[in-house]
Amino acid sequence: MPAKLIDGAAIAAEIRAEVAREAAALREAGVTPGLAAIIVGDNAASISYVSMKTKACAEAGIFSETFRLPATATQDEVIALVRQLNADPRFHAILPQLPLPPQVNELAVIDALDPAKDADGLHPVNLGKLLRGELDGAIPCTPHGVVELLLRTGNDPAGKHVVVVGRSTLVGRPLAVLLSNKARGGNATVTICHTATPDLAEHTRRADIVVVAAGRAGTLTKEMVKPGAVVIDVGVNRVDAPDRPSGYRLVGDATLDVREVASWVTPYTGGVGPMTVAMLLVNTVKAARRALEGRG
Amino acid sequence: MPAKLIDGAAIAAEIRAEVAREAAALREAGVTPGLAAIIVGDNAASISYVSMKTKACAEAGIFSETFRLPATATQDEVIALVRQLNADPRFHAILPQLPLPPQVNELAVIDALDPAKDADGLHPVNLGKLLRGELDGAIPCTPHGVVELLLRTGNDPAGKHVVVVGRSTLVGRPLAVLLSNKARGGNATVTICHTATPDLAEHTRRADIVVVAAGRAGTLTKEMVKPGAVVIDVGVNRVDAPDRPSGYRLVGDATLDVREVASWVTPYTGGVGPMTVAMLLVNTVKAARRALEGRG
Repeated sequence: MPAKLIDGAAIAAEIRAEVAREAAALREAGVTPGLAAIIVGDNAASISYVSMKTKACAEAGIFSETFRLPATATQDEVIALVRQLNADPRFHAILPQLPLPPQVNELAVIDALDPAKDADGLHPVNLGKLLRGELDGAIPCTPHGVVELLLRTGNDPAGKHVVVVGRSTLVGRPLAVLLSNKARGGNATVTICHTATPDLAEHTRRADIVVVAAGRAGTLTKEMVKPGAVVIDVGVNRVDAPDRPSGYRLVGDATLDVREVASWVTPYTGGVGPMTVAMLLVNTVKAARRALEGRG
Repeated sequence: MPAKLIDGAAIAAEIRAEVAREAAALREAGVTPGLAAIIVGDNAASISYVSMKTKACAEAGIFSETFRLPATATQDEVIALVRQLNADPRFHAILPQLPLPPQVNELAVIDALDPAKDADGLHPVNLGKLLRGELDGAIPCTPHGVVELLLRTGNDPAGKHVVVVGRSTLVGRPLAVLLSNKARGGNATVTICHTATPDLAEHTRRADIVVVAAGRAGTLTKEMVKPGAVVIDVGVNRVDAPDRPSGYRLVGDATLDVREVASWVTPYTGGVGPMTVAMLLVNTVKAARRALEGRG
């Protein structure tokens, strides 16, 4: 029986509807949740991502505004904008869209955020709280989205063995922490694998759930997956496709044949991607709620 | 062949000698590294730990002072002392000795520390930097000590499979992060097990290195260890011993018979314990070095 496809778009829509209800409740209480997005330069992908995110905000009843700086902006200029937005009560969350131009240190910009307004959950205070098992702050969007995909398809990771392939700060590392947490969406036994793992298949083959976030097509193949396992594919990779007008197509980190053995699999598009946007909205209304309750 | 015992006391002495050389260099450059310890109440163990730590400071050429508050001190009073020490240039590191009395929220006290002066590496900013893979700040002492024990006995975790048993904020969680880091002392494939792991032995039996930090005697037995594996035992548990004047003795989380199969094992005393003190001194001179170089 081929794997069931995890409909990330539908689950994200469900979460966005929940966010819209919470946003309405917040407005009722006198607080309109607000997100400020920062784009530095003219990176087409960044502009497209941010426009997707602000559109999702509008649909959920979240106020948003996009602040653009030229590609030549200095680090001090970007940080000055962050500070101005930290102080602006219209915004409960601030999103500096990555990547930033090479002259701007991304970590310095993230560190300049008021941790209470950190839309992506990447400020050290928020990552540190995550490592302490505190979940009331902002949680990194992609790992949080992966956990929700599992929970909302009846694949609660509690008591399962999850193998996470990839140790990025954006995905693998915080995800391993979230999944091992003593909390809803956690309580899994978690193995973190990465480029220094000598025999990846030896680990993935034993997993009840495999999350691939390695950023390399073909990282996970059919032979590496236990029959009946759940596969969450976070990868987005371009591969040559001469037959297409664009000359490329997007594939994940797992090959398509894993669907022959897995019980559930995310598709290459409409899997994890839409969840990342939905969890950004979750972080925004959570921040507005904290501000309303004076926990900002 | 029985396991070799890991001489934590000797390795800690080696590190303390390195710290003494660094402290001498700092004094030469005009900065005497300083540690402030805070004890609230009359907990005998706390008083004894702190006196051990300040003695180790004196031997390494680190200035230290112990600040004591009565057991009835309020949280505001403890935090006021922390703030005073944050502002005191004689101290580069501040150690609020845990546990604190029940009326004082330990996390609130840790959060009040200047992250640059966080002796134990438990402030969210420092835990968050650790999760980001940045190692220039304070690193939690016990996990850091475990990594040094491995490195200095020729058991570099790189490329190995390490199973960490226990997910505490003090040990298990930051240790899993350190070991999976792309850095010296890292690059291991790491599995985090805990009370929600259904079959612990299934995981530990596959490990090249097992670190037990579960806080429960008998957590790891001979049958659960692969022949030739390295066992690091972080546990300190009291068990009844009617034949002793005290009525108890201290044992680790692993039973003694693991020594029949493992290649290296930490003893119940003189294993991880002395390393925790040594790494506190390392954090203190690192903080003084950052202050000297204006990176405080």
